[in-house]
Amino acid sequence: MNVAKALLSIMTLTSLTACTALPAGPSRSTGPLVIQEQGSFAAGGKVVSTPGTYDNNNPAAQGQTFHGDHLYAFYQIPQNPKPLPIVMLHGAYQSARSWETTSDGREGFQTLFLRRGFPVYLVDQPRRGRAGNSTVAATIEPTPFDQLFFDQFRIGKWPDYFDNVQFDRKPETLDQFFRSVTPNTGPYDADVISDAMAALFDKTGPGILFSHSQAGGPGWLTAIKSENVKGIVALEPGSGFIFPEGELPREMPSAAGTLTPEAVPLADFERLTRVPIVIYYGDNFPVEPTTERGQDNWRVRLAMARLWVDAINKHGGDAQLVHLPEIGIRGNTHFLMSDLNNVQIANLVSEFLEEKDLD
Amino acid sequence: MNVAKALLSIMTLTSLTACTALPAGPSRSTGPLVIQEQGSFAAGGKVVSTPGTYDNNNPAAQGQTFHGDHLYAFYQIPQNPKPLPIVMLHGAYQSARSWETTSDGREGFQTLFLRRGFPVYLVDQPRRGRAGNSTVAATIEPTPFDQLFFDQFRIGKWPDYFDNVQFDRKPETLDQFFRSVTPNTGPYDADVISDAMAALFDKTGPGILFSHSQAGGPGWLTAIKSENVKGIVALEPGSGFIFPEGELPREMPSAAGTLTPEAVPLADFERLTRVPIVIYYGDNFPVEPTTERGQDNWRVRLAMARLWVDAINKHGGDAQLVHLPEIGIRGNTHFLMSDLNNVQIANLVSEFLEEKDLD
Repeated sequence: MNVAKALLSIMTLTSLTACTALPAGPSRSTGPLVIQEQGSFAAGGKVVSTPGTYDNNNPAAQGQTFHGDHLYAFYQIPQNPKPLPIVMLHGAYQSARSWETTSDGREGFQTLFLRRGFPVYLVDQPRRGRAGNSTVAATIEPTPFDQLFFDQFRIGKWPDYFDNVQFDRKPETLDQFFRSVTPNTGPYDADVISDAMAALFDKTGPGILFSHSQAGGPGWLTAIKSENVKGIVALEPGSGFIFPEGELPREMPSAAGTLTPEAVPLADFERLTRVPIVIYYGDNFPVEPTTERGQDNWRVRLAMARLWVDAINKHGGDAQLVHLPEIGIRGNTHFLMSDLNNVQIANLVSEFLEEKDLD
Repeated sequence: MNVAKALLSIMTLTSLTACTALPAGPSRSTGPLVIQEQGSFAAGGKVVSTPGTYDNNNPAAQGQTFHGDHLYAFYQIPQNPKPLPIVMLHGAYQSARSWETTSDGREGFQTLFLRRGFPVYLVDQPRRGRAGNSTVAATIEPTPFDQLFFDQFRIGKWPDYFDNVQFDRKPETLDQFFRSVTPNTGPYDADVISDAMAALFDKTGPGILFSHSQAGGPGWLTAIKSENVKGIVALEPGSGFIFPEGELPREMPSAAGTLTPEAVPLADFERLTRVPIVIYYGDNFPVEPTTERGQDNWRVRLAMARLWVDAINKHGGDAQLVHLPEIGIRGNTHFLMSDLNNVQIANLVSEFLEEKDLD
């Protein structure tokens, strides 16, 4: 049977070779993605009606309805998925675009975490992007904010890049970055957003929430409203720092305006103590007051976030804050998930998820 | 060597079995999708500037820029892709959402054509969805149009569904359909759209354009502006029927308003004669005038499209029109790519692409 044994050995090798030419599983960091299912849907929202009778052949507002204030979600489920999906919620002036391809053309958190085996849901929040139908009217002006964004998102101090900035300096990269901006199509409303997010978590079941910037606030509210939020990864939360009534820290003035904490009932706040939470902030802003507006904006947010983490933990929760320069990671802008070192940031997040049994 | 031969045979079978347990190539109609690459980017657009000097620490409009009027594209390239990608452009009140999951939760044209091996690019046109930054201001009102859309998109005559309609009647399906609507964030401008689309085709290289409804017009303009458009599949084109100067047919009054053809220079029109074009229209509207507004809207569009096809062919082009009921396909709404029989429609499109050597 030696011939047979040899053949067996050869054939096994051949078989393996043939198979590895096909795409591998979700743990691949490069190569083809294997998607079990993908698609999109709306979640949450309202229906408003106009009184009167609809006339099919002479339609006016009378007797018609309008669907709005829902979110839009695009999801991908990799083969052999991990049990908890990740839901990613963008910040101000952004859409789900924030989590996709980086401005310089590399893979963003959407695809990086898909490769790590997580089902990934990308959200356009109510009144933004593909979820543009707002039940409240708005006027949109072409507001020239590029230079303000360059400063405030800590790419540098316009027109100069920070020396160590984790942002590619090709002009086309900055062009793509500015074109990721998209306006509100209705007034920003953290309750409208978190209502729709809770409806999304009803559909996904238990999952992990990633928030960026302005989404910090609606993110906490989502975890208060939905027991399906099992962990939160907040990248540079910028708004909506909520504390129990009677336990508010002082407001914090800065060169970019005053940051004011917000009160919620203690019972609501305590719902945030049930899940592990990590917050990350990047580089290039001081911890002492500065007259540099774009940087001082983040000084007070970091300071407020530290008080917030303390409050969560004092109430029995499990929150931590990582100021990246303190662990030797330098040069990060406000867009940690798109920076040149975004794989390193994703690795940090993966370690957190593993440590908290969320993966 | 019989034992070895038998083993060889067994091992080959085993090997095949092992491999088919892994995802198969792009021709699979079900099962995992194998994506070689996916991502998103902006294409085209303008930069507008405000005079003056930017003050980093007291920012106002002065000296700042604004990036707008670009489109947003999300692309997926399957393993072993066919040579020509498909670029899909949505219609009025819609976004790339049009081509994704159907309102009743099945795969839309995005994933169906990925499975057939085409790289697929989904567009949010300038001033819509994730490409919301418009260089021209707009006011967005929550206009109640649900019932009008139900009629005009030929789901039925509100509140009744057409008897044969290819639209699922679960209430949540209609809810999802209404929530696929998203507003303009700036004035509709076929030139702005087709400029950005031509910039997109610069990036994709030679490809096929799928247009829906209002995108018909910008679609023709894109093919005039870009030699990379190698074929057009127009689903129920609803606007922008262009004819050579001096060859305009009469305008067509209808219960839904008057449809007016538009003039372009002959040289531009003739650029449309270089590529194969197919147009599809669905069911449930008469070819004779009716007082039913939602249906009469399509009567004149079908009639104008027939004249348009004749004009293209008279000038040496290769255009055809398929009125689906005439080939026995009944019940289609305005959203052919999402209807219950959307696989049948996709099959028709695939036959066209094969016939024209576009696959």
